[in-house]
Parts: sequence; C-alpha cells; structure tokens
Amino acid sequence: MIKEGDLVLLSVPGGQTYLVEAGRRSFQTHRESFDLSALLGRPFGTVLTGTKGGKCFALKPTIYDFLMKLKRVTQIIYPKDVGYILLRLDVGPGKTVLECGTGSGSLLLALAFAVGKEGRVITYEKEPRFQEVAKENLKRFGLEEQVIFKNEATGRFEEREEVDAVFLDLKTPWDLLEAAWWALKPGCPLGVLLPTANQVSQTLKTLEDLPFAHTQVLEIMLRFYKTNPERFRPEDRMIGHTAYLLFTRKVLPEENPPEGGPDAD
Amino acid sequence: MIKEGDLVLLSVPGGQTYLVEAGRRSFQTHRESFDLSALLGRPFGTVLTGTKGGKCFALKPTIYDFLMKLKRVTQIIYPKDVGYILLRLDVGPGKTVLECGTGSGSLLLALAFAVGKEGRVITYEKEPRFQEVAKENLKRFGLEEQVIFKNEATGRFEEREEVDAVFLDLKTPWDLLEAAWWALKPGCPLGVLLPTANQVSQTLKTLEDLPFAHTQVLEIMLRFYKTNPERFRPEDRMIGHTAYLLFTRKVLPEENPPEGGPDAD
Amino acid sequence: MIKEGDLVLLSVPGGQTYLVEAGRRSFQTHRESFDLSALLGRPFGTVLTGTKGGKCFALKPTIYDFLMKLKRVTQIIYPKDVGYILLRLDVGPGKTVLECGTGSGSLLLALAFAVGKEGRVITYEKEPRFQEVAKENLKRFGLEEQVIFKNEATGRFEEREEVDAVFLDLKTPWDLLEAAWWALKPGCPLGVLLPTANQVSQTLKTLEDLPFAHTQVLEIMLRFYKTNPERFRPEDRMIGHTAYLLFTRKVLPEENPPEGGPDAD
Amino acid sequence: MIKEGDLVLLSVPGGQTYLVEAGRRSFQTHRESFDLSALLGRPFGTVLTGTKGGKCFALKPTIYDFLMKLKRVTQIIYPKDVGYILLRLDVGPGKTVLECGTGSGSLLLALAFAVGKEGRVITYEKEPRFQEVAKENLKRFGLEEQVIFKNEATGRFEEREEVDAVFLDLKTPWDLLEAAWWALKPGCPLGVLLPTANQVSQTLKTLEDLPFAHTQVLEIMLRFYKTNPERFRPEDRMIGHTAYLLFTRKVLPEENPPEGGPDAD
Repeated sequence: MIKEGDLVLLSVPGGQTYLVEAGRRSFQTHRESFDLSALLGRPFGTVLTGTKGGKCFALKPTIYDFLMKLKRVTQIIYPKDVGYILLRLDVGPGKTVLECGTGSGSLLLALAFAVGKEGRVITYEKEPRFQEVAKENLKRFGLEEQVIFKNEATGRFEEREEVDAVFLDLKTPWDLLEAAWWALKPGCPLGVLLPTANQVSQTLKTLEDLPFAHTQVLEIMLRFYKTNPERFRPEDRMIGHTAYLLFTRKVLPEENPPEGGPDAD
Repeated sequence: MIKEGDLVLLSVPGGQTYLVEAGRRSFQTHRESFDLSALLGRPFGTVLTGTKGGKCFALKPTIYDFLMKLKRVTQIIYPKDVGYILLRLDVGPGKTVLECGTGSGSLLLALAFAVGKEGRVITYEKEPRFQEVAKENLKRFGLEEQVIFKNEATGRFEEREEVDAVFLDLKTPWDLLEAAWWALKPGCPLGVLLPTANQVSQTLKTLEDLPFAHTQVLEIMLRFYKTNPERFRPEDRMIGHTAYLLFTRKVLPEENPPEGGPDAD
Repeated sequence: MIKEGDLVLLSVPGGQTYLVEAGRRSFQTHRESFDLSALLGRPFGTVLTGTKGGKCFALKPTIYDFLMKLKRVTQIIYPKDVGYILLRLDVGPGKTVLECGTGSGSLLLALAFAVGKEGRVITYEKEPRFQEVAKENLKRFGLEEQVIFKNEATGRFEEREEVDAVFLDLKTPWDLLEAAWWALKPGCPLGVLLPTANQVSQTLKTLEDLPFAHTQVLEIMLRFYKTNPERFRPEDRMIGHTAYLLFTRKVLPEENPPEGGPDAD
Repeated sequence: MIKEGDLVLLSVPGGQTYLVEAGRRSFQTHRESFDLSALLGRPFGTVLTGTKGGKCFALKPTIYDFLMKLKRVTQIIYPKDVGYILLRLDVGPGKTVLECGTGSGSLLLALAFAVGKEGRVITYEKEPRFQEVAKENLKRFGLEEQVIFKNEATGRFEEREEVDAVFLDLKTPWDLLEAAWWALKPGCPLGVLLPTANQVSQTLKTLEDLPFAHTQVLEIMLRFYKTNPERFRPEDRMIGHTAYLLFTRKVLPEENPPEGGPDAD
C-alpha cells in the first residue's frame, strides 16, 4: 500500500510520466490537477481521476524510472548504456565496484541498486557540487548505504587490487588507466565512457602500452516505436548519440607492472 | 587463485575467447595448444604461452561472458537487450521475477545473477529438452539455487499478485498477457520479446483491452568498432536485428479485473 | 554571375541556410540583415557582410537544397531516400517515369532533374491543392517542362507498358499494384514508399499473387556528425524514421496477366 | 526485345541475381542450368525454366544492378552512399564532374549515367590497373563516352574553375583539398569519402584554413528486411559501415585564394 513519502510514478495518457512523493497535496500537470492524498492506503496501480475528468496511473517506480528522473547537473549515462555496462562489468549482488567521476550519479544509482546491501560502490568526484547532487539522488531513492564517496585523487585511487570492476567517465580517462589497473583485481573488467571518437583513439593508444587485454569498443542505439497496432512504425526522432563504450580487462604483465603502484611515492 | 574446476575465459590475440574449465589438461585453438595446468594456483589475469610461442590471457569470466558462451538450443537473448530488460523490469537483489519461456536460459542466467541469494526466479518452459539445457547452463555458472522451474501452464501461471516483474518470450505472448496480469503485483512491469513487427501489432492490439498502462516499444542496435587507434571506424558487419522489446505496467481496473483469475475454474 | 531572380543559398555561421531570390532588397535572419543587391553581378561563392558585421556565403543551390527547401503541404520524401530511389528505379537522362501521388513534389523535383530535357515524368495526384504546390515548386526550380500532371485515376493509369519505372507514395499502394504492372515496361522496376510496418505487410501480401519478382524491403538511416575535428562525434539527435522502401520488378506471367488491362472496360 | 549481347539480370528464387550476357549458351547456378538462347527475341521480364524445373526471371538491369555487379579490384562505394552523393553534388544531365580516384569505377558508373550524353566526368587515378578495370566496367555498361581518364596529378588538377562538383575518394584527401578548390566553379559542392574517424578529423582540420563553407559530415546505414508478410522483421545481419561522407562548398576568400593556383609554378 502507498504511504506518505513513497515515490510514485504518475503516468498520464500520451506517455508522459512524473515521479512524485505521495502525500496530502495535489499535483498539477499542464492539463490536469490530481489529488495525491487519494493514493494513501491504496495499492500501486491505482487509477486517479483529475479535477477535469482526466485519468492517471500510480505506478511503482523502477530503477529505470530513477535513472530517467534523477536531478541532473551533468550529462547523464542513459539506460541503454547503463544496462549493458552492468553486464560487462559483472555488477551483481555483493560486488565491489569503483567509478570515477560521479557526475549527477546516474550510473552510480544503478551500480548501488545492483550490488545490493552486501555490495559496495566507491565513487570519485572532484567537483563538490556534483557530489552533493549525487548524494541527494541516492538518498531520494534509498540507495545511499552502499556508496562510499571520495574526492578525485591525482592520478591514482586508494584501492589496491581489491575492486571487481572499474568504470571511468571523465574527460581524460587515459590519465587514469594505470590507476584503474592498480585498483582492479587481476583478470577483471574496466569500462570507459567516451563521447568523442578522438577520446576513443587516445584511450586505445594509451592502452597499447598497458597490461590490459580483450579491448572492445562499441556504441548502442535505441529507437522507440509508436504504439498504434494498426500503424506500427518507429518514432520520427531518436537520440543519435550518447557515447562510445570501451571495455577491456586487467592482465598481469610477464615483467614489470605499470607505474603508479604502492611504491610510487 | 585459480583452482581446478574454475571457469576461465581464455582470450587470444585477434579477439576470440574461449570459456574453459581449469584443470590438468591442455586446450587447443586452431593455432595453438595451451597447458591449462600452468594456471592452477595462479591468479586470474595470468598470461599463458602456447607450444608455438603464442600467448593467451586467463580472464575472470563475467555474466556477460556466460551469456555469450552458454549452450544454445534456441535463439538466445543478447546482452544489449538483456541489460536493458533488467533495468526496465527493476531486477535487483532480493526481487522475485517470473519468465516464460525459459529457452536455453540466457535471460534466466542474468535474472538469477541479478536477484542474488535473497531473490527468486520462476521460469516456465513446456519443452523438457530446453529445461534440461537451461538447468545445465545455470549449474555450470553456479546460479541454480535462485531458480524454480515450472512447466508451462495452459493460459495461466500459479503465482497470484506476488511477482515484481514478468517477462514473456514465446511465439504467441498475447495468449499470456492476462496470465501475466494476475501474476504481477499491481503497478509492476511486464516485458515482452517480439522478433517480428506482426507480433508487436498483435500484442499491442490485445493490450488495448487489458488493464496495463504506459506501454512502450523499442529496439536496440549495437555496433562494434575496430580498435586500431589510427584507423578508428565501425566494424564492416553488425547484427541487424534480434527482437523488438515491449514494456508495460499492470494497473488496477476501476471495474472488473481481466479473466483468468483465481475464480476462473 | 548572379543576376536578379537567381536562386541563391545563403549559408550563415552555425549551419543554417536560406534559399533566397537575388534582387534589390535586404534579407533578415534573426541576427543579421544582409543587402542582397551586393550579390548582383558577383559570382556564386561571394561572402556578404551584414549590417552588424556577421558574414554569410552565397552558395549555388543544388538539387539537394531544392529538396530541403521546397514548399511543403504534405510529408516529403527525404534526400537519403530520394537518392537511393533514383538508383533503384534507374532514373537517368531520357527516361520516362510515373509516380503516384505527387504530394508536395519532393521526389518529383528529383525525378524531373534526373531525367533531363529528353526525359519525362508523369505524376498522378487527386488533391488539386497538392498539385498546385508541386507545380509551384517545379516552376521555382525551373523543372516544370519535363513533367506531365494527371489526376489520380481510379485503379488504373493511362499508360500501357510504356514507362521505365513506377513509384507509389500513397496510403493504400496495394490498390495500385496492378495498375503499376500495366504501366511498366516488362522487367522494369517498381518502388513503393511505406511509412508503417502494417503497410509493408499488406503490400507484400498483395504482391504474392501478382507477376512481380525480386522484391526487397529496406530502410535507410542517416546520422549527422558534429564537425569539430578535436571532438568528432555524432549529433545528439537524428531522424529516427521516414519510411520503409519496397522495390520489385515487373515480370511476364506464363499464363494470364493481372486484371485492369486494356480490355478491362 | 532481348538480343544477343544484351545484359540481362537473372533473378532466381531466394533472392540471388546474376548479370549475364544474352546469347546462344547456357548459364549454370549451383542448382540449375538455364538455356539463355530461349531469351533471344523475347521481352525482358520473361520467365526461364531450368533443366530441373526451377524458374528464373530475365530482368532489365538498372544502374543499381551495375553498381552491385561491377568487377571489383578495390573497395567500392555502395548505392546507399552513391545515391545521396549524386544529390549532394547536384549531378544531373549536362553537368561536368571531377572525381579522384577512380578505383574500380563504382561511383564513376553512376556519375557517367547521371550526367548523360551532354555531360562529362573527369576521373583521376594513378594506378593503371584500376583504370583498366574501371574502363572495362564502363564499356560493359555502355557509359564510356562521357568519361575522361587522367592519371593522378601531384597535388593539383588540370581543371580551373570549370567543374560543377568534385568528389575525393583516396587515403589522404586533405592533400587535394586546395586542388579541389581550384578545379571547382565558385559556390559549388565538394564531397569526400572517409572510411575512418581519424581521416574525418584530419580533413576537417585542414578545411578550417581553406575557403570552403557549410561543411557537413554524416553516415548512412541501410537495413534490409525479410519479405515474409506474416513475419515482417529486419534481416539478422547488415553492413555496419562503409564510410563517413563529408560535403562542403567552395567560397571566394575576401583576400588571397589558397595555394596551388595557376601561378603556382
């Protein structure tokens, strides 16, 4: 049953959705006004009728909805990419994952959701304002417990061969590839988000001299369709690009490990 | 450290990978022979040298690798779709998910991985041979505990308003939309995999008369790139289509629920 | 040299273009005012300086520009599709092509351009208002000579085995497949524009019983890229869909031709 | 009527096509043998019956078929790109177009077809073997009259402000951008084919210092669909990439023209 303070996804005809907090108040769309107090004590899935007779549905929000509705102060990572990243980085219950940088916390939400109470996400972000927003987003969705925030270290992470996966989402990821190597358990995956082709080239070039193997680069395109069964066809417009994704795995060099290790100071 | 019986992903130059069981034996590619016993007691990430001097890397397999390397007796669901389905269906630690049908168990592996020890996956499959392969795949990857197998019921599932998400992957999913409604908790998501446009139309048409809301249809395309930093460009060939994906949510009708409920007998 | 009445494509920084008629007047963008009389007697390619110091270039308009800038009263066919249609329908100098319906005349412009003075385009359109706009567009670009306008005939065209290609762009193209067969020279191509998957299915179904062969269906996607050489990447948004294209060829039945022939009355 | 020496496109069930010369001989597919002499004096579109009872259709080949069936010694340009290039470069009856390099002559065929008897195509190629194959392809399709072959000049073309469009298809197109500028009439279009992102960046960078305007970069993707009306869906596999296309236009500098002009010697 829905109770005061619960997040509810209101779905109105036409496809728009709104993530709202249940309580004794009304909610305005540009067409209608809905009395949210009518939801209290009622199950999810309940239909609300607005003051002008319009309907909306009170859906149970999913992690997908959280990703789409979080507060944004940076470019976010979209679900089409997030879902694939989780599989590639082997993110599941109990895992320890490191990401840098946090941004608005979109991937972070999904990582925290996926590792669960037994897992742990370490997230580096040098910009205090982004950290605040990411914390706010985590708290709103009840996922703050699994997450440890750190300020971006210069050229290295505090972790040593202890994380199951690393994800880099910053402008110059090539600066942190060695740092990622040192943080990762051997044989484990690294993912990198790269908006431009130039960044992909630079990252690939830097990787050539580092002990990583099985590098792959790809992009994911998602196209929505209109849902009229008599006129089934793609939507007229779609997102053309979010970012290229690069995945690789830490291997053990036969000779010397890369720089930036524990003796580096 | 790698021990006998552990699964290891061998990555050879050129990009091919092989999922093998560690042990006192050798492994043949079409070019090389590798002595796997050299891996025992060594960490993941170790480099192996073949009898002709070729190298390979012993990577830690991820859920992505399991999805790509499972034994197949049916068309599988690919990671680009699986990752997105998990987010849309809100599949995470502790959730209860129902899928029909099991097939070779590709989505099932990811569902079982994602719900973890606290979660549960109920999977329906009428074809005993597919069930056997799916069980074998789960066992190989150590994910059998979370899964309950059931034979496909005729037009309904045994569960009543108790699962957090339902996924349908069968030829005539419109036959089980009412069954899915009854199994789902209110406000929760249903996903459907549909290879053809005709199946999408038929499913959309059937949904029009059922208490579901916020229906969306989409397709995901994934394109790999060549990893030469001086000649960055997409691969010449790509997968053109796997399936359309449909997502919707159970809502509560203002009047009568659909047919197929507990009083249906 | 540019003279009064010539069409000029003005290109301003930022990528916008405007198709204008040269003359003794000024042209306003939302930022600038350009004195077009400065172009008279000057070559294409000339740079104009606006009253606030902004620049624009006076480019020679191409058939591509005409397609993008024509007056629209209907959905148009886009260059990505038009270019491919021309090749598939073998449209070149001296050919005779039949299209139905005319719409705003976007494909018509390209057909008239491609067949040249020696060629001929016959275009059917039942809606007088669309015909007027199409004629206006043709006249503006100096391509009216090659075109014969006809009002849509009921279920048949006046031509008999005399056109080199037929293109159908109307809601129910299956109604005119027999008519297209009769108009076409044997062995020659038919193209059909189909916005929805349902229309494709219906057309394919109807074709099964008609003497056409080598049917293919496809869609074309075009993605623009940002042109910053240091940050090369696709544009954020793109057109997701215009239409499916179907191509087939008229063959000669071993027994009876389809209905609608000269003896039909 | 088909006569000896005519090119005929044989289409067999399953979708394969063969471009053959009509004559007194038989043609073997891997399944059937067809007596081609049965076509002489018969119209295009005729059905042939093989010795085992299989059928094939004798279609009239189009420029599209020529592009797909030409003899290849290099990577060719595909119809999806060719059709769009023609529109962008304003190639129609009577135009003069310059391309460099010729390669196997795929774009060349389309250019020669489109400019017609009144037009002219100048094509530069330094590799004599490619020139030979391109000439052979043109001759086979009866398009050699419109074409002038030249050996690649070092850094410049012989033409001066006299061609309506230029297309560059070589490894280092940035070396010939100034040459293209000098060959083009002012305000007219230049197109460049670029397989890799690095080449696009390099070309964009070089263009920044040259008098060209309205530069656009794009890629075109084409996806075929299965033609079963009851199971309409994309083909499983598709071409993932051919090349990026860049288009720009020559403008007149307010001060000095680029190097490489008539006084350059």
